[in-house]
Amino acid sequence: MSDEFAFIKDIQPARLFHEEMVIGIGDDAAIVSFEDGYEKIVCVDTMVEDVHFTRQTMAPFDIGFKALAANISDVAAMGGYPMYYLVSITIPKSWKPDELKEIYNGMKQLGDQYEMDLIGGDTTSGKTMVLSVFVIGKVEKGKRLLRSNAKEGDVVFVSGSLGDSAGGLDILLHNRPVAYQTLVTKHQQPKPQVALGRILSRYERVSLNDVSDGLASELLEIAEASQVDILINKETIPISDDLRNYDADKAFSWAMTGGEDFELVGSLPASDWDSLHEKCMASGIPISKIGSVQGGQGQVFLKTDEGLQKLKKEGYNHFNRS
Amino acid sequence: MSDEFAFIKDIQPARLFHEEMVIGIGDDAAIVSFEDGYEKIVCVDTMVEDVHFTRQTMAPFDIGFKALAANISDVAAMGGYPMYYLVSITIPKSWKPDELKEIYNGMKQLGDQYEMDLIGGDTTSGKTMVLSVFVIGKVEKGKRLLRSNAKEGDVVFVSGSLGDSAGGLDILLHNRPVAYQTLVTKHQQPKPQVALGRILSRYERVSLNDVSDGLASELLEIAEASQVDILINKETIPISDDLRNYDADKAFSWAMTGGEDFELVGSLPASDWDSLHEKCMASGIPISKIGSVQGGQGQVFLKTDEGLQKLKKEGYNHFNRS
Repeated sequence: MSDEFAFIKDIQPARLFHEEMVIGIGDDAAIVSFEDGYEKIVCVDTMVEDVHFTRQTMAPFDIGFKALAANISDVAAMGGYPMYYLVSITIPKSWKPDELKEIYNGMKQLGDQYEMDLIGGDTTSGKTMVLSVFVIGKVEKGKRLLRSNAKEGDVVFVSGSLGDSAGGLDILLHNRPVAYQTLVTKHQQPKPQVALGRILSRYERVSLNDVSDGLASELLEIAEASQVDILINKETIPISDDLRNYDADKAFSWAMTGGEDFELVGSLPASDWDSLHEKCMASGIPISKIGSVQGGQGQVFLKTDEGLQKLKKEGYNHFNRS
Repeated sequence: MSDEFAFIKDIQPARLFHEEMVIGIGDDAAIVSFEDGYEKIVCVDTMVEDVHFTRQTMAPFDIGFKALAANISDVAAMGGYPMYYLVSITIPKSWKPDELKEIYNGMKQLGDQYEMDLIGGDTTSGKTMVLSVFVIGKVEKGKRLLRSNAKEGDVVFVSGSLGDSAGGLDILLHNRPVAYQTLVTKHQQPKPQVALGRILSRYERVSLNDVSDGLASELLEIAEASQVDILINKETIPISDDLRNYDADKAFSWAMTGGEDFELVGSLPASDWDSLHEKCMASGIPISKIGSVQGGQGQVFLKTDEGLQKLKKEGYNHFNRS
């Protein structure tokens, strides 16, 4: 990689989905327009080599795909559409130009599905590969789905199945024969739940989070932000057959604390549950009722055969891990 | 630094300048509103330890200050106001909590001057300190100042003086006695030229760039984007007395290729020059006429006593440096 300028030209998109709304790519900054009536959603997520991924567990394509997926998931958790992204990448000398292009290809493949435009970025050199993606999205005014929206009596729901990403990582770390490709794919190329976020944005009141750090951690964030307690039932936590077959002993623990599933978890009034369930079925989105919101001060309890267990934040915490 | 969550709480601003327009800090993403009639400006700039700074040349406060300054400068170069920023920081174990806080204090001190709100971010661990700042600003519709706006007959101008930042770095690297604190300050805490960008936004047609990579490189970008040639006069390049006194031999070379001065350079119709000069004088903003735009295909020439010299992009290029 002899020239930063040449590289930037190389990764510039040939065409833009929002052609009429973007000006100045390659200038000092990008300029974007939005239709009136929308609020803008902005978020950033960073992946660091040997902290969030290794060359063993993730191909360059996957690294790009997942970094963008994590951000799109944050937009989905606000009920919005993703529209634009900017990429700041710190590149160690050991990375080859083709590998760097693959990172951008991974972002492009996912971004194209949502008609997202790459509108800017920064490339720097450094000792560790660091990939920061900034995403800008939009949501109709007043429609955002905050963590603080939960109320007593709500149904607590979660989409898809949990723990698959952690199971996939376990397969990769132990070089297991890939009998469970669905788990590996869920780890390397997680799918953000934008369609579900949009369905949820049509309801009057929804609390919502995406499962990036693990179910226990996400529920605690909702309970704390809403100043309520949450009670979930162990037997209703959705765990895939593949995960149970791969490791029945660890499946539940991965589901609770594994993280990086990028499913959506939240609550809405019990009277809206049937309607939501029906809409999700019609759209092919698996969704499960896993518990209820109760009066309280921010605690989460798991109901098992042995009784109630109080959950702690055991999700992914970079400072503790390092 | 035992807990990421505690750290994030610690750096959350106590109050917001744009209180009514921001929702959801600490949620999955931040949501911001804008008045109608504005376009949004977005940019990102990253600083990497041992590439863009060392612990020897920059205090933690300076690192934060300068990372935000570089982004505000990009917004200024589009003629806009900066409004919001998000910070992604990768933290090696060797950094102490107090030092991290100082990074955010440096950003806050500069951001407060522009009533900017810190609305989100991501913290990760890693082997190298990497600080990515993402800034969102606004500019009235149709008012942006692009590099591609230069036309034959324009006056070429630059604000302030050039090369001071490179001189300041030289002082720091060689542990010189600090007789030239202005140069050191220009390197550690550069001031973005937002007020000048706003003045320029009121003119009909302005091409504009900020001096991040060096004057030669910035002018070449304007010449290429506008498909014109630019001719500048050596004797009119603004160089401060402090820089000449510090190192008369190197001053001119630093002015041309040193970079990180974060002054604004650009062009506008010759008929607007007197008015611009007058407005800048009235606002206490030094500005110099350094040349003119001519017909051509993207080249920049320097006129010296020995004749014309064709300039090459010799600015800061991370890939070549490493």
